[in-house]
Amino acid sequence: MSDPKVLFSALFEPRRVALIGASSDVTKTTSRPQRFLRKHGFSGEILPVNPSRSEILGETAYKDLDAIPGEIDHAYILLNGASAVRALADCGRRGVKVASILAGGFADAGAAGASLQDDLARVVRETGIRLVGPNSIGTVSTDPAVALTANAAFAVETLRTGNWGLVSQSGSLIGALLSRADARGIGFSRLISVGNEVDLAVGEIADLLVDDPKTKAILLFMETLRDGERLARAARRAHDAGKPVIAYKLGRSDIGQELARSHTGAIAGSDATFDAFCRRHGIARVSMFESLIDVPALLVDRPQSRRGGHRVAVATTTGGGAAMVVDSMAVAGLDIAGPPNNLVNWLKPFGISAGDGKLVDLTLAGAKPEIVAGTIERLLADEGNDAVIFVVGSSAQFNPELAVEPLLRFAGSGKPFAVALTPSAEKSLALLTAAGVPAFRHPESCAEAMALCLLRRPPQPVPRLAEPSIGALDAMEAGRVSGFDERRAADFFGALGVPMARSMAVPDAKRIAAAVGEVGAPVVLKILSVDIPHKTEAGGVALGIPDGQTAAMAAREIEKRVKAYAPGARLQGFLIQKMERGLVEVILGFRRDPLVGPTVTVGLGGVLAEIYKDASTRLAPVDEREALEMIAEVKGLATVRGYRNLPKGDVAALAKTISAFSTLAHKQFASVAEAEINPLLVKRDGEGVVAVDGLVVLG
Amino acid sequence: MSDPKVLFSALFEPRRVALIGASSDVTKTTSRPQRFLRKHGFSGEILPVNPSRSEILGETAYKDLDAIPGEIDHAYILLNGASAVRALADCGRRGVKVASILAGGFADAGAAGASLQDDLARVVRETGIRLVGPNSIGTVSTDPAVALTANAAFAVETLRTGNWGLVSQSGSLIGALLSRADARGIGFSRLISVGNEVDLAVGEIADLLVDDPKTKAILLFMETLRDGERLARAARRAHDAGKPVIAYKLGRSDIGQELARSHTGAIAGSDATFDAFCRRHGIARVSMFESLIDVPALLVDRPQSRRGGHRVAVATTTGGGAAMVVDSMAVAGLDIAGPPNNLVNWLKPFGISAGDGKLVDLTLAGAKPEIVAGTIERLLADEGNDAVIFVVGSSAQFNPELAVEPLLRFAGSGKPFAVALTPSAEKSLALLTAAGVPAFRHPESCAEAMALCLLRRPPQPVPRLAEPSIGALDAMEAGRVSGFDERRAADFFGALGVPMARSMAVPDAKRIAAAVGEVGAPVVLKILSVDIPHKTEAGGVALGIPDGQTAAMAAREIEKRVKAYAPGARLQGFLIQKMERGLVEVILGFRRDPLVGPTVTVGLGGVLAEIYKDASTRLAPVDEREALEMIAEVKGLATVRGYRNLPKGDVAALAKTISAFSTLAHKQFASVAEAEINPLLVKRDGEGVVAVDGLVVLG
Repeated sequence: MSDPKVLFSALFEPRRVALIGASSDVTKTTSRPQRFLRKHGFSGEILPVNPSRSEILGETAYKDLDAIPGEIDHAYILLNGASAVRALADCGRRGVKVASILAGGFADAGAAGASLQDDLARVVRETGIRLVGPNSIGTVSTDPAVALTANAAFAVETLRTGNWGLVSQSGSLIGALLSRADARGIGFSRLISVGNEVDLAVGEIADLLVDDPKTKAILLFMETLRDGERLARAARRAHDAGKPVIAYKLGRSDIGQELARSHTGAIAGSDATFDAFCRRHGIARVSMFESLIDVPALLVDRPQSRRGGHRVAVATTTGGGAAMVVDSMAVAGLDIAGPPNNLVNWLKPFGISAGDGKLVDLTLAGAKPEIVAGTIERLLADEGNDAVIFVVGSSAQFNPELAVEPLLRFAGSGKPFAVALTPSAEKSLALLTAAGVPAFRHPESCAEAMALCLLRRPPQPVPRLAEPSIGALDAMEAGRVSGFDERRAADFFGALGVPMARSMAVPDAKRIAAAVGEVGAPVVLKILSVDIPHKTEAGGVALGIPDGQTAAMAAREIEKRVKAYAPGARLQGFLIQKMERGLVEVILGFRRDPLVGPTVTVGLGGVLAEIYKDASTRLAPVDEREALEMIAEVKGLATVRGYRNLPKGDVAALAKTISAFSTLAHKQFASVAEAEINPLLVKRDGEGVVAVDGLVVLG
Repeated sequence: MSDPKVLFSALFEPRRVALIGASSDVTKTTSRPQRFLRKHGFSGEILPVNPSRSEILGETAYKDLDAIPGEIDHAYILLNGASAVRALADCGRRGVKVASILAGGFADAGAAGASLQDDLARVVRETGIRLVGPNSIGTVSTDPAVALTANAAFAVETLRTGNWGLVSQSGSLIGALLSRADARGIGFSRLISVGNEVDLAVGEIADLLVDDPKTKAILLFMETLRDGERLARAARRAHDAGKPVIAYKLGRSDIGQELARSHTGAIAGSDATFDAFCRRHGIARVSMFESLIDVPALLVDRPQSRRGGHRVAVATTTGGGAAMVVDSMAVAGLDIAGPPNNLVNWLKPFGISAGDGKLVDLTLAGAKPEIVAGTIERLLADEGNDAVIFVVGSSAQFNPELAVEPLLRFAGSGKPFAVALTPSAEKSLALLTAAGVPAFRHPESCAEAMALCLLRRPPQPVPRLAEPSIGALDAMEAGRVSGFDERRAADFFGALGVPMARSMAVPDAKRIAAAVGEVGAPVVLKILSVDIPHKTEAGGVALGIPDGQTAAMAAREIEKRVKAYAPGARLQGFLIQKMERGLVEVILGFRRDPLVGPTVTVGLGGVLAEIYKDASTRLAPVDEREALEMIAEVKGLATVRGYRNLPKGDVAALAKTISAFSTLAHKQFASVAEAEINPLLVKRDGEGVVAVDGLVVLG
């Protein structure tokens, strides 16, 4: 189905819904969709399908799909395994617009299940039917009410409407989020469990929600990423539509080492690549589960700021509570902004000296509504801050209406405004939420939300990739055919635009002295062999050779050692490389991440790179501007960015080189699975950078 | 008052309470203590003092303190400023056992207030009365009920009893914690606001609570630390009594640079010193505010484990929810332990294959009580884990009794056992809490609590300090009298037991050649002058000098440069030092922290030390065992701990040197405010360490 509008309607606003395998036994999960649809007021037609019944829970039942007259918008298949596959095929043949499958036991359950899942994929391909799942616990809209779900969480008495759309790869977490949001007085527009994502996946669903007038924020609970390109497109369109996309993703602790064969992969970790994906496409990633509910209110109708202000003014009726918010804010990278003079003067007659510190503490004024309101008004008008937080004390608990009343008028203020509640004050929280004032229970989540509100960036432009040069393509082809020894790797990187140390390859020890003369002493001497990846360990490298004669002797020694170390290895001569020095060693890595695609990583070189995991990762390619941001993120590169009395390094040349290296993302280089430059030496400002060694891994 | 029992009774179980400055105007804060005492069922005598009233809110009022017959256990002074000081003096004269002062406006309010606070301190000193505050919003017991407080949060209808004692430096946060705990079904035994701590401070109060049979856990909300030694003592006694001490402290973001004059101070930061304090004395520090309520249940009756097991078995009825807990656990440093074989086999007949992963997912069993209970029972009995977490899904929301019932029997199990609730399920939370099963609302706080439960250490022994050697005392005295130039600093550190690079001081350039012969080339040459702290900048250092003749020439050059750089400086000759090399440079720092006292910091040397803030801080002194722990915490020292093919460094010698350096904590060295060794070179294993430069700052 190519028309997104038709798909959207069939998914979220179906009029005629078939339930294939519906049950009249209310203790069975398969009876739930029918019960929940009716319970929450579905006004369309429910069409239960069951070969052995003519009526189910008061509705006419059909013996099979063909017995149902007319169009079917959405069929929920409640059968297992091969029966579910057959039912999907029936749906495809019958022209059902979209089907969902409840059962698990497909790719989530070993080889047999995977084969069944392949069958589903084939039906989708052959019939063109769109599929949610398998392993989808359902799809729900709140307005109009369509609770097409087997999720026990929808046994709630009433389904709250709302403006947030939730797309989840975990079915059970939908229930958790529904209950947590409901307790806060927050409802959703749509909730969908995407299951194993054989066809419809997070990205495409999110894309549909961008055009949904009832959805103002798109929330994602993710375990993996299957349609990154679609999600990227959705996030960019959402940005243009002014709708924040907010994601919680499992896997912060998985450093993804098993996925990485090369050194740099281990530094970057798979969590860093998802962060890079979110950053590139303007997705706000939250770290606390509760934040998925807490954060949207502050981001809705609040486009990302390009100027990146980070000064937050804080006023309070509880000094201790506000101190916790400020502490968490500072940890999250925000600054506190002091009160403007006009506020300091205005507060004086009330006996409040706001000029003493940066926090505006109104405790002495006893939370008088006019003082609270006047303070917030003046802070919101002040050019000296980028956002305002008000921290409420015990008045929120005992006099919710009074405590909250002066805050409500600031809902939808031009500048971000949030309220943090120090005591347990559910009533105040509900009043603020209902009025559209972002309100927080925890100092930590308030700080996280404000940091996302102010510091997250709009989607970054994806650099346009020029066609690769003939030279680069030729060099890649040579490496692909014969293997990438040092010589060919150097040619390839050089053709990409990475400055390589001057070098020459010679077939045997006899020609070395002359080569040293051409390259210029001192030199490094390395054995050339595609069969020996770790040349230092094999005794195949000699450093700091001062002249040609010494080099020739060293070459014979190397040959002896290498032959003893790896008797069968093919030796292809020697590489003579000019010995280079720099202020600092950098490592560049390129990978094709299985989830997010090509990435580029910049880290500090040497053993400390591994130890500190001090690296910055982005989706590749990056332009020079973004490469400069990466350089700024690597802490250890502070030494060349201008630090104390240390000489500055050629950061501009480094950025240019990172950008050139990242063009490996071009599809014409698809056979390069991984690549690494290690080390890349950064010289003094104006003197450039030079790569000493590089590695190419073919896919 | 020297008897802690009498003090405890007067504070928390007073029978006769005077309210000095009580008001009958119920809109006034000063009327609250009387109203709250009665409201919550105080059964003793309330003695309002007010010169202009004979009766207040139904109680006989007294015109002054002397008009009250008999003993007074506790007087709450509700007057401001100088009147409060006079009232305290009256109390002291009258023999009142303990007084509290509500008003702020003392040291919390500038110079005039500070002088008033000095007056309070003088009264305490002269009369021996014990004082809570000023700026104390009150002291509360729940059993027997004594709500001696002006805190609006105690307007609650009923005051829940409980076993946790709360000591807070913030008055308003008591209300926040009271309401948050109450919403969870948790009560406190005692709650006390210590205010400005002129006399009674957090440590002494905590010490009283150790002996309180009604208090099983001691919770601290801290903004600073005023009686560190008392708190240390209390924490150690609490450990012996099996009562956890749990602290939240503001100031995580304050890197305390302004407090630090030396290099190392800036690395350590003041937050690191408080962490060091907590670690030394066995205090569990929480990072989330909510954890202050969440964590105690898991630590009560659960002494710190010395063996430090960190494997947690996780079973669940919600895969996604459990994955979040596991993710947070791994971030907090815990491992997940798989199910034992007997559990895998036991679950098979129920159709659950628990052997596939480490998580035991019972979702398919539909949360059947006997399966849940049987699973937990087998996990708790398994030697292969150190703790068990059960993660509950939506059943906790809809069938709290059913979902929670099979879990209750595991309250008080021998092994740590916690329940995490994925949905919003307040009823289940309350049932579990009431039964004594630690239960958590957030995956993050569940992980933090479990990490504190398993990974926190018992109080560490404080190393006994030997008397300093005569040599060290002489060297310190020499430096104190004449200033610490390189020569004298080296003598001092050498006498402490820090191996110093061989060196000689000569009064002028003529004797240098001979000195080089004695020290052994190559050498480093440095100008000696107490007037020039930064010798490299002054041109006062020359490195890598190969022989005596070159050294003599270099000395003349240095003299010229230094005279030009600092014409007035006194030059005291030259230091000739053997040029040393090591595998890695370490920096050692010693400070007397204003809050926690002497500290020692070990960090990676060089410019990267500053950039990465890669350092470990402990209270000084440390023994070699603790020094080894510090070395293990400095990430950058991985290179000498045994990393890949790199040569190991002499870690034992480094530990010995750290321990020797940390003896600066001895009170005989009190005139040394700060000291630093930078760099200390670590040589190959067996070859020792050697310090090249050191700095002593006198107090």
